[in-house]
Amino acid sequence: MRATIIYGTGDVRIETVADARLIEPTDALVAVTRACICGSDLWPYKTMEHSDTGRVMGHEAIGVVESVGADVRNLKAGDLVVMPFAYSDGSCVFCHEGLHTSCVHGGFFGTAEVAGAQAEAVRVPLADGTLYVLPVGRDDALTASLLTLSDVMGTGHHAALAARVGPGKTVAVVGDGAVGLCGVIAARRLGAEQIIILGRHADRIALAREFGATEVVSERGDEAIERVRELTGGFGVHSVLECVGLEQSMLTAVSIARPGGAVGRVGVPQDETMPASQPAFYNNVTVSGGPAPVRAYIEELLPDVLEGRIEPGRVFDRVTNLDGVPDGYRAMNEREAIKVLIEF
Amino acid sequence: MRATIIYGTGDVRIETVADARLIEPTDALVAVTRACICGSDLWPYKTMEHSDTGRVMGHEAIGVVESVGADVRNLKAGDLVVMPFAYSDGSCVFCHEGLHTSCVHGGFFGTAEVAGAQAEAVRVPLADGTLYVLPVGRDDALTASLLTLSDVMGTGHHAALAARVGPGKTVAVVGDGAVGLCGVIAARRLGAEQIIILGRHADRIALAREFGATEVVSERGDEAIERVRELTGGFGVHSVLECVGLEQSMLTAVSIARPGGAVGRVGVPQDETMPASQPAFYNNVTVSGGPAPVRAYIEELLPDVLEGRIEPGRVFDRVTNLDGVPDGYRAMNEREAIKVLIEF
Repeated sequence: MRATIIYGTGDVRIETVADARLIEPTDALVAVTRACICGSDLWPYKTMEHSDTGRVMGHEAIGVVESVGADVRNLKAGDLVVMPFAYSDGSCVFCHEGLHTSCVHGGFFGTAEVAGAQAEAVRVPLADGTLYVLPVGRDDALTASLLTLSDVMGTGHHAALAARVGPGKTVAVVGDGAVGLCGVIAARRLGAEQIIILGRHADRIALAREFGATEVVSERGDEAIERVRELTGGFGVHSVLECVGLEQSMLTAVSIARPGGAVGRVGVPQDETMPASQPAFYNNVTVSGGPAPVRAYIEELLPDVLEGRIEPGRVFDRVTNLDGVPDGYRAMNEREAIKVLIEF
Repeated sequence: MRATIIYGTGDVRIETVADARLIEPTDALVAVTRACICGSDLWPYKTMEHSDTGRVMGHEAIGVVESVGADVRNLKAGDLVVMPFAYSDGSCVFCHEGLHTSCVHGGFFGTAEVAGAQAEAVRVPLADGTLYVLPVGRDDALTASLLTLSDVMGTGHHAALAARVGPGKTVAVVGDGAVGLCGVIAARRLGAEQIIILGRHADRIALAREFGATEVVSERGDEAIERVRELTGGFGVHSVLECVGLEQSMLTAVSIARPGGAVGRVGVPQDETMPASQPAFYNNVTVSGGPAPVRAYIEELLPDVLEGRIEPGRVFDRVTNLDGVPDGYRAMNEREAIKVLIEF
């Protein structure tokens, strides 16, 4: 089968690899019909040291179940499923608590252990717990939005929950990437009154406004902090969604939270330490978040997608086939594209 | 009047200074009857650069109102009051939210702006909002416990709330100082099932056990983390109360939280950055806390003190008069004393 393999910085190739196949009796084999490129895929694209063996990339997919292992109970060949970026058994203590990304038997796609989904097929461990059967056909008009339930929409929702967004709250979203844009959707969906997006790309900001952002702050650093304070009576916002993961963005996030507010961070942190520990402390600002248990959120978000109340699929502004994936990485890295959808 | 002045590292003196007096019409003048030395007083004791003018120390006190400004409505001469470590108007948006330490007109005692309470008298700004009238006589047997409502008991309670302690939860308390010990009291009071104290001083650990600690971990660093995991089925605890404020203690705190757990930090952070940002992120560990709004907690904690259900005053293991305060600093710094009570 053909798959996307990264070998190092800027080195993404489409190659023929051994076919994905069932290994464990709890596995499912899924023929991928849609996948996409994630902002987090850009970290290895920008920084990975050369590897002779490479790594099959991709952790967001919709596909059709081709076959299942002997212990799989809830899935059958032909089911259209969405695949969250983490696999999980659905039965451990953390899955029961809704934190599937900490499943004691779980793990992540696109790693050394489990190959990724920017490929014609993917082996899905713990399939009963991991996959969610979609009640639509494989080329449904909602497919792009349904695909975001595998990561970005669930991640934006997680950021909003971690930041304690609720009715009447003031919210800031740091970052205008696909996750930040989904964070705007999530904040509006949860009843936020004011939603300030911090970003500077005209196309993304325009989309953020359509998703519900009430104000845009395009300044950076201290000027951005000053602007947010001006927009919030001098205090800062109740809830900050940190959707970047850099030291500077985290510093901004903590600094624009009002005393007693919360930062929900979902941008994979690129630094060992968290800046602004002291401002967060003195203002009693809570810092929460992490890898989103998107599997837990599908039930909640799915009806809103199916009934058209939210349209997170609009974050995809480019569509390609598998051959176009390397150029998709380049385009996202150069901010030519917000998020690239891959059709098979 | 006589007061405690710090001039630099290890240099605490009792000197005669200008009498405290009313300045603003919202002030009260309080004759101090009990004060104490705080663990946070040891930071300047250990690190302060020499100052020619010095600073009047102390932010925890019980006293008798001597006089009040023209705009003070709820207090009168003769009232016995407890003074929280921060002053606050009780009427701003943050006070209404229960975050009195972020009062828009508030501040802290023992600073360059407002003199401290390790003194015969103290000027209390925003007296109506700040002071709480106690329903006991000035030498009541409960005085020591009531004094802890000015800081350490409220701070331990804040750590427990920030760490989301609740019925049936597993809890670890990092630090066996007075705040950590009050954290044990708070965790038990809020219904924790398992309370692990991390500390190594025999006297403090013994008291922690009497307060409700179920296990003691005296190891440090990686060994401490390993021990806590062993005691919690390998997962770590739901709630960590970080009552030290050092990089190492914060690293331990984040590392012993179970996935989805929370760290409530009340130890004043001595580092600009927070270590272990990545472990906290990958485990979805929430980091919360800050200066405790102890004023907000007095109503809740007072009945338990008055009815003897909690005895936080037992953290005082040494009593002195004002002349003995410099030696009290030395004794606490050398871990000879847990916390020193000052009687006037």
